[in-house]
Amino acid sequence: MSDAGGATRRRGRPRRTESGDTRDRILVTAREEFSERGYEKTSVRGIAKAAGVDPALVHHYFGTKEQVFEAAIEVAFAPALRAPEAIGEGPLDGIGEQLTRFIMGVWENPTTRKPVLAIVRSAVNNDTAAAVFRRLIAAQVMRRVAARLESPDAELRVELAAAQLVGCAMLRYVIKVEPLASADPEQIVARLAPVVQGHLTGP
Amino acid sequence: MSDAGGATRRRGRPRRTESGDTRDRILVTAREEFSERGYEKTSVRGIAKAAGVDPALVHHYFGTKEQVFEAAIEVAFAPALRAPEAIGEGPLDGIGEQLTRFIMGVWENPTTRKPVLAIVRSAVNNDTAAAVFRRLIAAQVMRRVAARLESPDAELRVELAAAQLVGCAMLRYVIKVEPLASADPEQIVARLAPVVQGHLTGP
Repeated sequence: MSDAGGATRRRGRPRRTESGDTRDRILVTAREEFSERGYEKTSVRGIAKAAGVDPALVHHYFGTKEQVFEAAIEVAFAPALRAPEAIGEGPLDGIGEQLTRFIMGVWENPTTRKPVLAIVRSAVNNDTAAAVFRRLIAAQVMRRVAARLESPDAELRVELAAAQLVGCAMLRYVIKVEPLASADPEQIVARLAPVVQGHLTGP
Repeated sequence: MSDAGGATRRRGRPRRTESGDTRDRILVTAREEFSERGYEKTSVRGIAKAAGVDPALVHHYFGTKEQVFEAAIEVAFAPALRAPEAIGEGPLDGIGEQLTRFIMGVWENPTTRKPVLAIVRSAVNNDTAAAVFRRLIAAQVMRRVAARLESPDAELRVELAAAQLVGCAMLRYVIKVEPLASADPEQIVARLAPVVQGHLTGP
């Protein structure tokens, strides 16, 4: 982050900046490897090789493969997951449509669809990756949406709403069942937003 | 199926019965292999080895790996998938609860949960397995439910209803997000049945 070193940064490689660069390069590489191969088929050794560093350095910065995975997901999605849309900020009576549009937007965007698909595949295949999914998505996103509701069963409500959106993403983008896979996104939003809203704030 | 051969069936092995036995044994073995390893990691060679037959015999009876997979799924699930509950027979105003209970029942039963999980994992990981899923589940089950509805968008309605149930199964049984994973099944039925009903027969 510091600009110290200035023009000599690239060539002179002051220690602290280089270490930041290396860490970032490992993270970017890890994200690509996990996206490409999924959690199970990705190894710390493979990430290290692709990033041009020693595997020990990957362990030094991040720890276990699980921790590398968590860091890679977090850096890729934290900005999106902390966006006001992701946690349904704004009027509570529009939260169903807001969350539906947010999730549809993530899947409709080719840049985010691929890493999201990799996370879903990894979480479905592997218990460790599922645990990371629970910590990041469930704890950081769902809990924050739940905190906005006043119901004693707020967390269950959020999860059933998420189930509608997750299931739609599975059938539309992963399994590609027709006519859902080719349906107009606006038509889907029109159908799902009231359901999500009902789960969250209905009786 | 024929009892011809009677007591000598096991030892004497009349040709036609033996061939039926072998075919069945391959199917049972294939189902176990696919359940255990998923679609991608299972090979025709591996199935043949586990069934104690030549790989050529597996190809002879079923064709490609994709066709073995389809036959194995079909034989495992056809009875359940053709059950009246699976296609929502009975009064249309109870179809939401009936389908919700059917899907919950499949996942709550330890005997059916494992092969269903294997199919879901395979379909999420592999496009060929996803195509089999589409043909079997989408065409055979969803289309038949849709045929009961009078709406012009009946198929989309069924798929959005299925999305709610698929997503709930994913979060509860696969990713195991709490409190959903430990919630009382009756509580989930009470929440989801009206949503499924609404997708199918709502305005």
